[in-house]
Amino acid sequence: MEDTQKYALLGKMTAQPDQREALLSILLQASHLVSTAKGCHQYLVYKDLQTQDCIWISELWDSVEDHDNSLHLPGCRDLIMQAMPLLAGKPEKIELSLAGGKQ
Amino acid sequence: MEDTQKYALLGKMTAQPDQREALLSILLQASHLVSTAKGCHQYLVYKDLQTQDCIWISELWDSVEDHDNSLHLPGCRDLIMQAMPLLAGKPEKIELSLAGGKQ
Repeated sequence: MEDTQKYALLGKMTAQPDQREALLSILLQASHLVSTAKGCHQYLVYKDLQTQDCIWISELWDSVEDHDNSLHLPGCRDLIMQAMPLLAGKPEKIELSLAGGKQ
Repeated sequence: MEDTQKYALLGKMTAQPDQREALLSILLQASHLVSTAKGCHQYLVYKDLQTQDCIWISELWDSVEDHDNSLHLPGCRDLIMQAMPLLAGKPEKIELSLAGGKQ
């Protein structure tokens, strides 16, 4: 897939001690929620193997607008509200554009 | 896809000034090379939208062994040797395990 227009997002989150699994569960629900959203090509959730409380998310969208619109999907706000108390600090957001590769 | 065994890798690289496009081209060749490698589910190359000379790669493999084996594919070493002079510093490697989500 050689498409330089797609918008990608990496998110890095640190859970409160012993809350990674709870936070993962919420993020996996979010992945199900947005998987049908317009323009969503990928929403993967990972555990960091080197940093105990750390979670990463990688998202791939047709456009930043599609990503932003998905935040208004029914249920999305609720999941964000559930996740916030489990976070230790502000999530890190890395905005990217896809240059290409195998997806 | 709910599969907690898969091995994922995020790589962050900084190109020498004005060398991002040249480095991207090499990494896209690498993505073609490994796309047929055993256990390779994803090898995507991105430009960082906030940091001018920065490139990210996201890889998804059945196992860390499959990833490591791919480094021995014919042509892989050559691409690594081509890329090295274009790098400004050591690439950052973030090792992850997939918790799930939409791929």
